Amino acid sequence: MPTENSTEQPRQIVIVGGVAGGASAATRARRMNERAEIILLEKDPDVSFANCGLPYHIGEEIPDRGDLLVATPEFLRQRFRLDVRTNHEVIAIDRSLKRVQVRKTDTEREGETLWIDYDKLILAPGASPIHPNLPGCDAPNVLTLRNLVDTDRIKAYVDQANVQRVIVVGAGYIGLEMVEQLVRREKQTTLVELQPHVLPLLDAEMTQPIAAELQRQGVDLHLGVGIQGVETSAGRATGVTLSNGETLAADLVVLGIGVRPNVDLAVAANLPVGATGGIEVNDQMQTHDPDIYAVGDAVEYVFGPTGQRQRIALAGPANRAGRLAGQHAATDQAAAMAPVQGSSVVRVFEISAAMTGLTEKLADRLGVAVRSVTIVAKHHAGYFPGAQAMTLKLTYDPESGRVLGAQAVGGAGVDKRIDVIATAMHFQASVRQLAELDLCYAPPFGSAKDPVHMAAFAACNQLDGVEQFQRFDSDLSSFQVVDVRTPGEISRVPLHDAPHAIAIPVDQLRDRIGELDADRPTVVSCAVGIRGHLASRILKQHGFQVANLSGGATLRNRLANID
Amino acid sequence: MPTENSTEQPRQIVIVGGVAGGASAATRARRMNERAEIILLEKDPDVSFANCGLPYHIGEEIPDRGDLLVATPEFLRQRFRLDVRTNHEVIAIDRSLKRVQVRKTDTEREGETLWIDYDKLILAPGASPIHPNLPGCDAPNVLTLRNLVDTDRIKAYVDQANVQRVIVVGAGYIGLEMVEQLVRREKQTTLVELQPHVLPLLDAEMTQPIAAELQRQGVDLHLGVGIQGVETSAGRATGVTLSNGETLAADLVVLGIGVRPNVDLAVAANLPVGATGGIEVNDQMQTHDPDIYAVGDAVEYVFGPTGQRQRIALAGPANRAGRLAGQHAATDQAAAMAPVQGSSVVRVFEISAAMTGLTEKLADRLGVAVRSVTIVAKHHAGYFPGAQAMTLKLTYDPESGRVLGAQAVGGAGVDKRIDVIATAMHFQASVRQLAELDLCYAPPFGSAKDPVHMAAFAACNQLDGVEQFQRFDSDLSSFQVVDVRTPGEISRVPLHDAPHAIAIPVDQLRDRIGELDADRPTVVSCAVGIRGHLASRILKQHGFQVANLSGGATLRNRLANID
Repeated sequence: MPTENSTEQPRQIVIVGGVAGGASAATRARRMNERAEIILLEKDPDVSFANCGLPYHIGEEIPDRGDLLVATPEFLRQRFRLDVRTNHEVIAIDRSLKRVQVRKTDTEREGETLWIDYDKLILAPGASPIHPNLPGCDAPNVLTLRNLVDTDRIKAYVDQANVQRVIVVGAGYIGLEMVEQLVRREKQTTLVELQPHVLPLLDAEMTQPIAAELQRQGVDLHLGVGIQGVETSAGRATGVTLSNGETLAADLVVLGIGVRPNVDLAVAANLPVGATGGIEVNDQMQTHDPDIYAVGDAVEYVFGPTGQRQRIALAGPANRAGRLAGQHAATDQAAAMAPVQGSSVVRVFEISAAMTGLTEKLADRLGVAVRSVTIVAKHHAGYFPGAQAMTLKLTYDPESGRVLGAQAVGGAGVDKRIDVIATAMHFQASVRQLAELDLCYAPPFGSAKDPVHMAAFAACNQLDGVEQFQRFDSDLSSFQVVDVRTPGEISRVPLHDAPHAIAIPVDQLRDRIGELDADRPTVVSCAVGIRGHLASRILKQHGFQVANLSGGATLRNRLANID
Repeated sequence: MPTENSTEQPRQIVIVGGVAGGASAATRARRMNERAEIILLEKDPDVSFANCGLPYHIGEEIPDRGDLLVATPEFLRQRFRLDVRTNHEVIAIDRSLKRVQVRKTDTEREGETLWIDYDKLILAPGASPIHPNLPGCDAPNVLTLRNLVDTDRIKAYVDQANVQRVIVVGAGYIGLEMVEQLVRREKQTTLVELQPHVLPLLDAEMTQPIAAELQRQGVDLHLGVGIQGVETSAGRATGVTLSNGETLAADLVVLGIGVRPNVDLAVAANLPVGATGGIEVNDQMQTHDPDIYAVGDAVEYVFGPTGQRQRIALAGPANRAGRLAGQHAATDQAAAMAPVQGSSVVRVFEISAAMTGLTEKLADRLGVAVRSVTIVAKHHAGYFPGAQAMTLKLTYDPESGRVLGAQAVGGAGVDKRIDVIATAMHFQASVRQLAELDLCYAPPFGSAKDPVHMAAFAACNQLDGVEQFQRFDSDLSSFQVVDVRTPGEISRVPLHDAPHAIAIPVDQLRDRIGELDADRPTVVSCAVGIRGHLASRILKQHGFQVANLSGGATLRNRLANID
């Protein structure tokens, strides 16, 4: 005997797409409204699976395929009384009659169509991998990875002993995860990326440790080259031709070159799409039609650092948006979807990279003025065994000091630092506030001065004019360069492209200051920037116009591998 | 040729105490002012050491004692031009003449005194371990741990093969770290704690997994008992007598029963001490005398959740306060010290516990009204191998929903969640905002719905009246209890102290609702609370007055071990 609570009125909610927020919407709708009819339509055979886990099953790090099935149709029916219909593709929305046209895609009933009414419609169409229309790309062993069918297809090749040479095209998250898992399966793995560095979303210098790790693991890297086509023999791909004319042999080609949001259904129903190609929604995830919601990789979210809407194809926002849309569709009320920072992380063998918010690269493209600092620090107390280095780059507004983004690369703990900074960004934190955070510390976990603090201290010093930084990749030829490391360090790791650097260990700088020309613009450098900080303070207080080379020799010497 | 920058004027800065913020103050002062005379006075032979690392050297997880010496006097002299004077104990402050009286404590010159002038004085006296005045406690093998001398003393005993039985008194952070390291050294280890559970700072149920882990590692636990005295023979401790009359044999006794702030010097100089026994300071870390700063374990900080000043004996705030005081003493300007959340973490063998802000226990003591939710979740995607369970408790203001504290216990990743929540608390976040955070996710690192989100969702549901929670330790005898787990789960792990529970699996609840009495106050329970959430929603919408047992059987069954 249901109560007459107004938020639990009977209604028919139709959800299109199980992954990318659809299942979240459906289960939240059910929990909020037992009296609703909830129909979940999915064009594929699987309705809700661990799409972020697919590469790991191919690599057998997740050995059991069943583990990928987060929620089977049967489970969703029993637990949530959802009317789950797989192999049901929605092909049209009739907004005036509030109904969707569905085509069955299973083999027995393929092509049958029917109409299903809705009171509230939630679109979670996701995005589809781009499969370019280049010669040979239609060969059966040239594959993309989006769902379980794709996973099975790729894994069937990988499982064959005679499939030895695999080319992965695209060094984004999926490409890197595939490469890691292919090496795990002992394949000869080649990675091709059109951009000049891996992880094109990140700033170049932050990705160099990932590239180095890939090479250490035996991956054949081809950066800054696209593919012109796929070589075939007897209808099967045998290799790839690069834009530089080179040909690479392959038994299997996996494409991870990006996704295209599935907006056709929305567009055909005259639901507007925004400037970045995603479905336009409001903070309740409603499209321009208030009875139609959209969530996931096909929509535009408010991007925290800019306040502008853009597509952000990540599982976290899709889940949260789905949950809110499901609640709103079921009860007519829900919290507003909050701005999204774009936080993400990827593991690549022994190291990881994570980011949130704006990179310098993206800021440039959007015309947003930013400043950055980069530090190199240990993930926990240096005196405790097992401390691993991380590089942390903080990007902020040069006027207000508001934190606009962060990138981290290194061993353990990069995810923690990015989560902390993303959390601070949710509250529009300034770098000054980041320096104040009270983070938990014990030697196995962190340092009393955490890498987050160190980055924030550097940014505050820069903001206050206490310290100036010189970009790691500057042309140093016109500067007086002072390398304040010890002679031993300098001879082991000379400062890249600065043969004119004057070597004065920081501990001798005060006594040997007379050897320097106080009238020349000066750059100091050490290993990572800490001694450089002190040296820059000493020289500044002696009247020098001085900057500290950001990240010291560690960061600058990545140039040797980036260029 | 120094510039005439007003912030870099010559002055004499005297710092009392190298650890607990003193060295941070000194090095920041130097970096901000090359023209200052900076004198660092330390009564011990070591000026700056890794005090959080001491137990790990005793256990030889940090094998090299030299690794504990973060900054030697020689290093500080060379790099920062600090006038470091070890074995110099400050015994009086003459505020009118702005000088301190110093007594030398090294053996050759013991008792010699001198006066040192200051323009600015920074006190970093820290705190001293409590060594109770009980019979036998003065035996040479009854020891506390604060500095390197103590470390060497304890380690010398531990290194002896015939020292086999060690009793640690006090199950706080240091006590637990000592126990872990003693087990590592294969000692027969006993832990005695006056409070009824380990980690007395935390709420009882959160500490039970730590107690279980200690027992799994063979530690002999005695909770809820104090020590009456130490048994001695020939002047050496041979055991401990407990308040319950029991006697335990020991070759070594280590006391970790708390610390006392070293405020005598300040008190003697008429610098006021606050209600919690720490030196009163303002946001610039100035005492009531603006030329005298105080930082570290002996002062009172603003505690974020209450806005009240209290002592918070942690390394992170000490470092930050030292840095700010050092800058202010050197330049007359610095940022204000921000409120401190009291974030901390401890590793105990395979598991860890971390906390920030208010516990329920502390809220009770301070008379602050709070509500809590507790969830049990995996530290990363459940389908990815190696997922470890954590229990996360969130405490918030029942009116505004403002987050006031969090506690986590479990395997990997508890530090990350507490840091994220501590960061949100820095911005006075509500549980609603916690639910919105955009955290980075990939299967090896987290879940699209992170434990932080899960806890925040539960709190939002509670705040919105969507779901009511029943305390894990409630007397359930008067309730209609519905256990919605499967029969197999229930027979393996019956719900503690609820023999009258009615077993209806959640998937059958809608069909079997007629078996329940809709007029009786009802509590539902599952394994951790997730199915209970759905069950409570179903029953609520069918007119039941229903609550979900917080943390399900997992949390409630800890009662069996807590009571």
